[in-house]
Amino acid sequence: MSNVGLESLQTANPQEGYELAIKLSRMGVKYTQPSEEVRNKLRPMYGEDPTSLIASSQVVATNFQTVATANNYWK
Amino acid sequence: MSNVGLESLQTANPQEGYELAIKLSRMGVKYTQPSEEVRNKLRPMYGEDPTSLIASSQVVATNFQTVATANNYWK
Amino acid sequence: MSNVGLESLQTANPQEGYELAIKLSRMGVKYTQPSEEVRNKLRPMYGEDPTSLIASSQVVATNFQTVATANNYWK
Amino acid sequence: MSNVGLESLQTANPQEGYELAIKLSRMGVKYTQPSEEVRNKLRPMYGEDPTSLIASSQVVATNFQTVATANNYWK
Amino acid sequence: MSNVGLESLQTANPQEGYELAIKLSRMGVKYTQPSEEVRNKLRPMYGEDPTSLIASSQVVATNFQTVATANNYWK
Amino acid sequence: MSNVGLESLQTANPQEGYELAIKLSRMGVKYTQPSEEVRNKLRPMYGEDPTSLIASSQVVATNFQTVATANNYWK
Repeated sequence: MSNVGLESLQTANPQEGYELAIKLSRMGVKYTQPSEEVRNKLRPMYGEDPTSLIASSQVVATNFQTVATANNYWK
Repeated sequence: MSNVGLESLQTANPQEGYELAIKLSRMGVKYTQPSEEVRNKLRPMYGEDPTSLIASSQVVATNFQTVATANNYWK
Repeated sequence: MSNVGLESLQTANPQEGYELAIKLSRMGVKYTQPSEEVRNKLRPMYGEDPTSLIASSQVVATNFQTVATANNYWK
Repeated sequence: MSNVGLESLQTANPQEGYELAIKLSRMGVKYTQPSEEVRNKLRPMYGEDPTSLIASSQVVATNFQTVATANNYWK
Repeated sequence: MSNVGLESLQTANPQEGYELAIKLSRMGVKYTQPSEEVRNKLRPMYGEDPTSLIASSQVVATNFQTVATANNYWK
Repeated sequence: MSNVGLESLQTANPQEGYELAIKLSRMGVKYTQPSEEVRNKLRPMYGEDPTSLIASSQVVATNFQTVATANNYWK
């Protein structure tokens, strides 16, 4: 991530915008836990816990608001 | 989902907009837990836990904000 | 709900707007738990748990933002 | 509350706007738990639990966003 | 707080805006728990619990959105 | 932080904007827990708890909304 970075919030369509929102959400986790090894260890805990899954979806929803606004909702 | 994707945020009316917000919320869960088998196993845990139900409704509310704005509130 | 649906975000005044925000919040729960029987069983758990009550109020607050914006704040 | 209702989002100044945000937050709780007796019983649980206090402040913050926008930030 | 109140959302710069967001967040707690004695007793619980610290930062982030918008982002 | 403070919400690009959102999120924690010693003690608890990681990412998402808006989404 630190190699590529976040170049733009503009995307070609809503699907790509949604994927950018996913990327932004993961960036937030990476900044707090930089170790890929630890994140990989935690991933199964995320993925099988309903509370974590819903909370993850909330983060994506918030980032998607930002991306959708940045793209004028792809109108 | 990966077959269809997210084509547009425009909907004909608020009811369809709400359904799109539901779809967006489920997409967030699918990206974090891609296995349909695991998601199906977790669903009963969601559906009978008040905290999870309210948290799910919060995600939908956030996505509905985005969809409603994208449609200029169907005015 | 599925019979009536969501016809419009416009309301005559803030009080009706607030009631629409309540309706939207309940819709979010209904989509995740379609069984009225199960929801009725869970309701007492909601209503006597401070955390659930506050979380419910958060969902309503988010939906009220949407409804209030849709109505230009009833100015 | 059901007697008075929510008449307007306009307030004379930020302090009154903040108080309206408090009122909106309490309305959300009242709709989920209509019994004043039960709410009074739960109040001490709210007030001495840090998590509940912070969550309550989050609801107020969301409602204050709505009220502040409705008043064009009292500029 | 009840002596001073909230006079304005305008601040000279982002730093003062952030401090106002902190003040707004604390006001939300004060309205729910008016007793300074109880709040002082709870403060150590806040400050050493990661979940509470992150939740507090979330409230500040929400209030900072409001203050930043009110100041047109100090552009 | 108190030496440098928050001078501006303007950044050259989305990547720097994201980093400012991280800084804002950490400022929220610092105001609630001013002791660097205590924060350092708590950091390992943050970083290995999925719930805390997701919650941290939520705070960053909210602050990034603010920063992105302040920069007109770097369009």
